[in-house]
Amino acid sequence: MEIACLQAAGTPGDVEANLAALDAACAEAAAHGADLLVTDEMYVTGYDIGERVHELARQDLLARVQDLARRHGIAVVAGLPELAGGACYNTAALVGPDGALLARHRKAHLFGALDRAVFTAGDDLVTVVDHAGVRIALLICYDVEFPESVRAAATAGAHLVLVPTAQMEPFGWIAEELIRVRAWENQVYVAYVNHDGREGSLEYVGSSSVVAPSGEVLAAAGHGDVLLYATVDPALVGEQQRANPYLADRRPELYGGLAR
Amino acid sequence: MEIACLQAAGTPGDVEANLAALDAACAEAAAHGADLLVTDEMYVTGYDIGERVHELARQDLLARVQDLARRHGIAVVAGLPELAGGACYNTAALVGPDGALLARHRKAHLFGALDRAVFTAGDDLVTVVDHAGVRIALLICYDVEFPESVRAAATAGAHLVLVPTAQMEPFGWIAEELIRVRAWENQVYVAYVNHDGREGSLEYVGSSSVVAPSGEVLAAAGHGDVLLYATVDPALVGEQQRANPYLADRRPELYGGLAR
Repeated sequence: MEIACLQAAGTPGDVEANLAALDAACAEAAAHGADLLVTDEMYVTGYDIGERVHELARQDLLARVQDLARRHGIAVVAGLPELAGGACYNTAALVGPDGALLARHRKAHLFGALDRAVFTAGDDLVTVVDHAGVRIALLICYDVEFPESVRAAATAGAHLVLVPTAQMEPFGWIAEELIRVRAWENQVYVAYVNHDGREGSLEYVGSSSVVAPSGEVLAAAGHGDVLLYATVDPALVGEQQRANPYLADRRPELYGGLAR
Repeated sequence: MEIACLQAAGTPGDVEANLAALDAACAEAAAHGADLLVTDEMYVTGYDIGERVHELARQDLLARVQDLARRHGIAVVAGLPELAGGACYNTAALVGPDGALLARHRKAHLFGALDRAVFTAGDDLVTVVDHAGVRIALLICYDVEFPESVRAAATAGAHLVLVPTAQMEPFGWIAEELIRVRAWENQVYVAYVNHDGREGSLEYVGSSSVVAPSGEVLAAAGHGDVLLYATVDPALVGEQQRANPYLADRRPELYGGLAR
């Protein structure tokens, strides 16, 4: 599977501008042969836009993304707000190349006052779905900083963990080092797709990357609007998990305390 | 608390030579004002010495370490083999400055054929003990590569995780990057104390370090025999855990699957 990661500053609060840019990125990624495009966290509306996000969430943003995916024949993971049962979730939706909604993950670990002021936490630690021969796990931003989340993805058999994020200064080394460790300690692919530029009070670090199960960085951005490409080979995950058998060497019978 | 970390090539299979070097290191560390000295994994006998370790374990190696600690008035964490109930464990023993045995941790995650050929796995995920105002957690080598182990230390309130290790090529980046992530994601001190030089089939990476709860590297070695010093301030752990509240933001009610 060829994946494309869209690192972008976006236009905070301007859904039409962001969808137009996503349209162009889908066209470019599809022309490049990519099977799946991943945006950053809350790409469609912007992230640090306060309660404005509730108003924007009333539109059917998901349908717009589904339309784009269908038109370009490319799967899309898009970050957007999701209204459900009176709550607003910070969501990543995976849409197939035919426009079908395949899965959605609601951020389970809320980050500080920024998230808590406007979002409700999701209650799935990780969301896992099979698509085009790849078992894909969805996490959002702060979720990936918890080793529990990526471990749950790996023990569910995920090959690839997709992480739309909005990672700001002074946490650049999370993008550059922690992500590599997450891939290595679980022997899975991790794609960490970040905002760039400034938004509200935040200065994003960019530094999106795709890391192989070996810990090798397959593609990495600095600052700027970038489409990163990388190839994901599910067979390699099994090979790496046999070569560095962290998953087989776990002692789950000793881990009960982690859930209390 | 001032800690001293003894990175050494040691003399594989020669207990007297290793204890003589430990004697000298204790004297130097005590003169430097250190409260606690930590050796690398299986320091007293050597690590990659095959079944020879069973024969050497029949001596009362712990008593020899207790005697050294008492004579120098310094606490010691020493890596040594431990015979118990017909099994041989890869153990780290914490001895107080009065020579009393305060705790021992038996490596819970065995590393490949190297460990499995001679050792039985311990059944405590982590061993935690209070000493001199610091809550100390003991892990050994491969244990620390499992995020579950350090998380268990942190949720048990540990300030400082001591990790005697025998980390070999080609895994140098574990010493240099993964350890930093473990400290950061739990906001605890981690001291990673490695062998250096060659032993049996192994070429060790050295690169011992002490990392602060902030992820800052307080002290780091390259290759060679080195005594690394660092100061551990338990109050800083609480401050950092409030500033970067990973522990408070965990969702343990979602983590049950990690123990299955």
